[in-house]
Amino acid sequence: MPTNSGRVLLAYSGGLDTSCILAWLIEQGYEVYAFMADVGQEEDFAAAERKALKVGAKKFFLEDMKREFVNELIYPAVQANCIYENVYLLGTSLARPVIARGMIAVADREGCDFVSHGCTGKGNDQVRFELAFYGLKPDIKVIAPWRIPEFYHRFAGRKDLLAYAAEKSIPVAQTTAKPWSTDENLFHISYEAGILEDPNTTPPVDMWKLTTSPENAPQTPEQITIEFKAGLPVKVVVPDSSKTHTDPVDIFLALNTLGRKHGIGRIDIVENRFIGVKSRGCYESPGATILRAAHIDLEGLTLDRNVRALRDQFVTIEFSKILYNGHFFTPEREFITAAIPASQRTVNGVVKLKLYKGNVIIEGRESSEGLYDEQQASMDELGGFEPSDTTGFIAIESIRIKKWAQANIAKGQAGVAPKDVYGSRI
Amino acid sequence: MPTNSGRVLLAYSGGLDTSCILAWLIEQGYEVYAFMADVGQEEDFAAAERKALKVGAKKFFLEDMKREFVNELIYPAVQANCIYENVYLLGTSLARPVIARGMIAVADREGCDFVSHGCTGKGNDQVRFELAFYGLKPDIKVIAPWRIPEFYHRFAGRKDLLAYAAEKSIPVAQTTAKPWSTDENLFHISYEAGILEDPNTTPPVDMWKLTTSPENAPQTPEQITIEFKAGLPVKVVVPDSSKTHTDPVDIFLALNTLGRKHGIGRIDIVENRFIGVKSRGCYESPGATILRAAHIDLEGLTLDRNVRALRDQFVTIEFSKILYNGHFFTPEREFITAAIPASQRTVNGVVKLKLYKGNVIIEGRESSEGLYDEQQASMDELGGFEPSDTTGFIAIESIRIKKWAQANIAKGQAGVAPKDVYGSRI
Amino acid sequence: MPTNSGRVLLAYSGGLDTSCILAWLIEQGYEVYAFMADVGQEEDFAAAERKALKVGAKKFFLEDMKREFVNELIYPAVQANCIYENVYLLGTSLARPVIARGMIAVADREGCDFVSHGCTGKGNDQVRFELAFYGLKPDIKVIAPWRIPEFYHRFAGRKDLLAYAAEKSIPVAQTTAKPWSTDENLFHISYEAGILEDPNTTPPVDMWKLTTSPENAPQTPEQITIEFKAGLPVKVVVPDSSKTHTDPVDIFLALNTLGRKHGIGRIDIVENRFIGVKSRGCYESPGATILRAAHIDLEGLTLDRNVRALRDQFVTIEFSKILYNGHFFTPEREFITAAIPASQRTVNGVVKLKLYKGNVIIEGRESSEGLYDEQQASMDELGGFEPSDTTGFIAIESIRIKKWAQANIAKGQAGVAPKDVYGSRI
Amino acid sequence: MPTNSGRVLLAYSGGLDTSCILAWLIEQGYEVYAFMADVGQEEDFAAAERKALKVGAKKFFLEDMKREFVNELIYPAVQANCIYENVYLLGTSLARPVIARGMIAVADREGCDFVSHGCTGKGNDQVRFELAFYGLKPDIKVIAPWRIPEFYHRFAGRKDLLAYAAEKSIPVAQTTAKPWSTDENLFHISYEAGILEDPNTTPPVDMWKLTTSPENAPQTPEQITIEFKAGLPVKVVVPDSSKTHTDPVDIFLALNTLGRKHGIGRIDIVENRFIGVKSRGCYESPGATILRAAHIDLEGLTLDRNVRALRDQFVTIEFSKILYNGHFFTPEREFITAAIPASQRTVNGVVKLKLYKGNVIIEGRESSEGLYDEQQASMDELGGFEPSDTTGFIAIESIRIKKWAQANIAKGQAGVAPKDVYGSRI
Repeated sequence: MPTNSGRVLLAYSGGLDTSCILAWLIEQGYEVYAFMADVGQEEDFAAAERKALKVGAKKFFLEDMKREFVNELIYPAVQANCIYENVYLLGTSLARPVIARGMIAVADREGCDFVSHGCTGKGNDQVRFELAFYGLKPDIKVIAPWRIPEFYHRFAGRKDLLAYAAEKSIPVAQTTAKPWSTDENLFHISYEAGILEDPNTTPPVDMWKLTTSPENAPQTPEQITIEFKAGLPVKVVVPDSSKTHTDPVDIFLALNTLGRKHGIGRIDIVENRFIGVKSRGCYESPGATILRAAHIDLEGLTLDRNVRALRDQFVTIEFSKILYNGHFFTPEREFITAAIPASQRTVNGVVKLKLYKGNVIIEGRESSEGLYDEQQASMDELGGFEPSDTTGFIAIESIRIKKWAQANIAKGQAGVAPKDVYGSRI
Repeated sequence: MPTNSGRVLLAYSGGLDTSCILAWLIEQGYEVYAFMADVGQEEDFAAAERKALKVGAKKFFLEDMKREFVNELIYPAVQANCIYENVYLLGTSLARPVIARGMIAVADREGCDFVSHGCTGKGNDQVRFELAFYGLKPDIKVIAPWRIPEFYHRFAGRKDLLAYAAEKSIPVAQTTAKPWSTDENLFHISYEAGILEDPNTTPPVDMWKLTTSPENAPQTPEQITIEFKAGLPVKVVVPDSSKTHTDPVDIFLALNTLGRKHGIGRIDIVENRFIGVKSRGCYESPGATILRAAHIDLEGLTLDRNVRALRDQFVTIEFSKILYNGHFFTPEREFITAAIPASQRTVNGVVKLKLYKGNVIIEGRESSEGLYDEQQASMDELGGFEPSDTTGFIAIESIRIKKWAQANIAKGQAGVAPKDVYGSRI
Repeated sequence: MPTNSGRVLLAYSGGLDTSCILAWLIEQGYEVYAFMADVGQEEDFAAAERKALKVGAKKFFLEDMKREFVNELIYPAVQANCIYENVYLLGTSLARPVIARGMIAVADREGCDFVSHGCTGKGNDQVRFELAFYGLKPDIKVIAPWRIPEFYHRFAGRKDLLAYAAEKSIPVAQTTAKPWSTDENLFHISYEAGILEDPNTTPPVDMWKLTTSPENAPQTPEQITIEFKAGLPVKVVVPDSSKTHTDPVDIFLALNTLGRKHGIGRIDIVENRFIGVKSRGCYESPGATILRAAHIDLEGLTLDRNVRALRDQFVTIEFSKILYNGHFFTPEREFITAAIPASQRTVNGVVKLKLYKGNVIIEGRESSEGLYDEQQASMDELGGFEPSDTTGFIAIESIRIKKWAQANIAKGQAGVAPKDVYGSRI
Repeated sequence: MPTNSGRVLLAYSGGLDTSCILAWLIEQGYEVYAFMADVGQEEDFAAAERKALKVGAKKFFLEDMKREFVNELIYPAVQANCIYENVYLLGTSLARPVIARGMIAVADREGCDFVSHGCTGKGNDQVRFELAFYGLKPDIKVIAPWRIPEFYHRFAGRKDLLAYAAEKSIPVAQTTAKPWSTDENLFHISYEAGILEDPNTTPPVDMWKLTTSPENAPQTPEQITIEFKAGLPVKVVVPDSSKTHTDPVDIFLALNTLGRKHGIGRIDIVENRFIGVKSRGCYESPGATILRAAHIDLEGLTLDRNVRALRDQFVTIEFSKILYNGHFFTPEREFITAAIPASQRTVNGVVKLKLYKGNVIIEGRESSEGLYDEQQASMDELGGFEPSDTTGFIAIESIRIKKWAQANIAKGQAGVAPKDVYGSRI
């Protein structure tokens, strides 16, 4: 006997979990609308729509969010060189705010009382979705079945879901389930859970879906150029295919194609989820890996040293943390991204790259910004530089160091390197 | 007519520049002792000694500093994941404190009044050497000929040095000078100046001295394991060669051999020197690149999230800056390195790696630290985790975000992503 | 009918709340031991013991933790200049780890299955206590009645507690309850809740318990000196009372007496609790305010500039956050405090202070560290300083700034200050 | 026989030093124009003009920069709570960019080849002025006589300047020189050098020029309110004088008057100059001290916790350093200030203050921003808050802490506070 009522907008994936949730929500008494966001994942959206409606969704909404995903999330992250724990390029984190915003817009328009999702109770995505919902619409109500005891005790394993699907006549794909989970969008694909939960298990070669393995990638390198304006990629030239890309989304997709071909952008890590649990994940981010290497390189030529240092320490690290933890629609995100444009004003120029079997090799870069000065840098000519100035610089720089050294000597502690780190072993 | 006197300890390289400086110092009236540090560079030390003495050095000192270089500089930098401007592993910077300390020890023991070096007036090394000298012996006097106008105006080009060498009967190697400069030690080799000063010139393939190019590296991947204790590598197992390395220096050299064979560790960047000049440099750091990837990976498994975040933002960045700028013998280095051991206490375990054509591929990792918990991380079982706890977590996390969103709504500024970064272009 | 069993160690205060909790726990079937920590609060411990036993506690434990509170918590915080949100000196936060540790030690020794406390569900202290418990004894079970619905719904107001106290024959103090709550220890007293919840209500003059108001403080200033060794206060000389204090606890208490007399250390703020709720609090920290001013002053004379800047940005801020959020027994606290001793090695000397009506006025300081050099600092003599060195320093410092300015000029954006911040108003 | 030529714009103060420099520059062959900026210092500008022209200046320029000083420098620093080394409010640093910009504008307009100033070679101001000059006009040439050996050796002491003044018929004020130097503007006055160079000498009571001493300040407190919009003071109400101030400059001057009357804003510190020399300085910043206290307080009520924490750690600290070191016209200043408006959007409201004998006492604050919620904060009612949520929050927060504690226990290192900091003494 259903005891609930109201309209729920469910983030629907077309898979077993969210189909069962859809049926279960109806069983609980809710009217359910299904929502899908096209963020560039490989998916038969029409089939998903048919399935949702068949299971009982009253309406189905598909929103194409690829352009805003690229322009509003991915490219600011490229400008800021975002990365989590030194390795992860944040592909899933970047898609969540766009999806959540699309979902809230539909929920608002369609008069939904609730939003719902199929994220597990142990992961990051539940937090990212829900904090985004609340940051956009603070009074929205959220139904998270995987955190409702009656739901998660009832569906303790895949077997229970399959039984329920059979009971509810939910079509189930005949392909054998992979022993891991994935999440895909145009930025990347992620793999986690299942056999990957043993962090010492090497991922099987057939797991990697997007990229050719470096071993199977072409024997011949391929050269491309990427032009940036204000830290944003505005032109990619691919001589081998005689193509030039200038549209923001095309640029990203073209880099993806190149990266996939050349085996670029695979990682395998143990990361720290926001809830404090360590988790093993594998990711493929082909285009993003190329773009990051090129952008960082061009900053060497065009970005002031002090701006770079401050940006690396504060914006890169804090914006990455904000994205990973799902704090996109928050005042701190608004605050931290406010400084990005000022850091990218001078990041204009062209980077030459060579792609080869997993490697992104920088081959040169040019810019008309003028912060690099070949004469001034030259070791072969003075170029307007007066070496004796450096004598004054070193004299001033050493003032406080000499005072410290004198104090050390007075105490019998003259400068010594940190004690041999192997000391205790020998 | 010499107007100077006193004993000078000269950092001697055996090359044209420091040989001319040696002769010039003698001409100025100084007694000169020559000093060389063996930090693992490829060098005919005996030939260098003969040359120094032939040119007029009264004494010659060769100090083997490889072990302290590895143990006291390289390994702490590995523990802290040091890197400068996202790319450069600091190979030259790491060697300077060790060389300076060796030199001050000899100068002290041998009663030298001055130390001297052949660094240019535009570079980082002059600063690194001299600040280290002053941090160890604040009253030492330094002679830096390339910053003395009468010297640098007299020797305006290589031609002038060659003429002076001929006049002073200084032997000159018959090999043609390379159109770039290098600095080598067991951590890396650097290339700069000459044709590299145009940042858009791709380095010639024959420039790279240490590593095989990825293109020419073996077609067959090679698997190894590295074991760490407290963040320090304590065992490297190389099955293909049936070798196991446990000595700190052997470990580093073995990783170098592997990296060189597999084309690992080349970079090409424009960096910001301490004096504020942008400069193009190419580097090969084969072993260090492998070690860094392995260490970062193991930290994923064994280091607490919050320690990692604090360490990345403060110690990694600040220690890297300290090293690059030559501030090793300073109170801030003493301060910043004091926190490293506490960050590495739990970094114990073994990483499996595959080396292939420029790639360092992580294949797994294990540790008995217990911070990773397979049951707890599992998506297939509760593992002691109560999903409803996360509901409370999200509720609390969203308190301030909801307040902010409510204030936005009250002002008609409901949460919106940063404006389309391409907005102004369209 | 009690359905629970096991032994509970309850953090007992002697007040109405924890007395009711004590009775309620017994009612639930638990055996209860009561625990009190003497951290310097004004309290009739004997009366509290009698009351606990009367209400039904099987045992009562009073631990004197004043010395470890001062030595292990307060003084490291003084060394690091800890402060939360620019104003709050963290008096409550500092006591919690000591109390929690004392409690876990007793729970362990006495075979308790649970620990319990009377903190509300909205505050910081519940988090501080429980994270400390888990950091010390991860399998301890915690009973927090104010977060148990059956408890907090039953006791919705003070009236319900009074009725329950009557029912259980719990003695209730006849004094009228103050319209605010307090927490006291030897570092400070806090006031919150009640009438203070309106942030625009000025605290009544009779609320402040520890300090004389500045208006009523003596008309005559009092001069004292504080000597520090390695950043720790080791001697306080109070000429007016002919007293000298050298014991760590005595020093702190003597400074408290002075601060209370001279109206020093009152604050009134709205702060951000860890759970994200803003909250109004008033605090009196008399001795701590004096000590902080003196310590910061002495660091000016004795601490290297770069160490100070790094310490301020990282250790001061992060350690303060760690303390406030109850993360004392965590790896990040272990990490961040590891750097404190290296920052305090040179902080040795004596500060002269004048105390007067709320003001802590620095009147001078001296040290034999030698980092301050009167001759070198002098504007009246060269003192070994060569002014022309600064010309080189400025020349080098301006290299990158000139490049940026040239680029600005080329773009027609010559250096301009940020636009008039009042611009949009006019 | 003059060997120089060209037109110099000299920053002229009317005092002995810059008058002698004026005469000396003419003696060297330069044509000299004199420049004064009115930044609110107490000065007889007409007398200074007469003197400059008498000594030989060809033209005299007086620029009123008070308004841009307040709006473009002081108020952004208030918004960011700028402070150097915990104590110094940066009064001199804030004026320099405005003066330098005014000077460059005149130099440009009047066709000057050089700018010149009378700053010493050991101080901060030479660096601040010259870096500002270069950041605005990178090809400007600077004459800094106190760093030119022939000048500073000729004028080794005040006696030499007085002799030269007599020789050149430069009028010298008959008042005895004070045994310290000062610099004044509408933000503050500074005192340094002379008898203050002994850091243990208490400044004489008659040194303090701006403020009444706390001892002599009124016995009766005075209450005022300050209203802020977007972190900027927009209204000051002073009931005792029945005045309301709304003009930006008036607001600051009114707060100065109040601060001076009530003995507010004196400090005495040893600070670290940019060149690495420690230096003793005393300052009076009456209005700025009141404004800072009020702004910080209002941020408690109106600024999100995470924005505040990020802003404190990055913007406050870095912008303060930038200001102190004279890096105002640099890319890093442009970068760091870009984030300020986003941090101040919600800082709207009114603060009630009481001024009394050196104390700025906060008595309450209100705002319609709504980030503070009295019901939610209340300890007396649930206010929509579900205490059991905090149980989930703590459970999640403790996950990684428990893992760490378990690992500690496994190693026999169960959580212990940092070792007694007095340990080694006992």
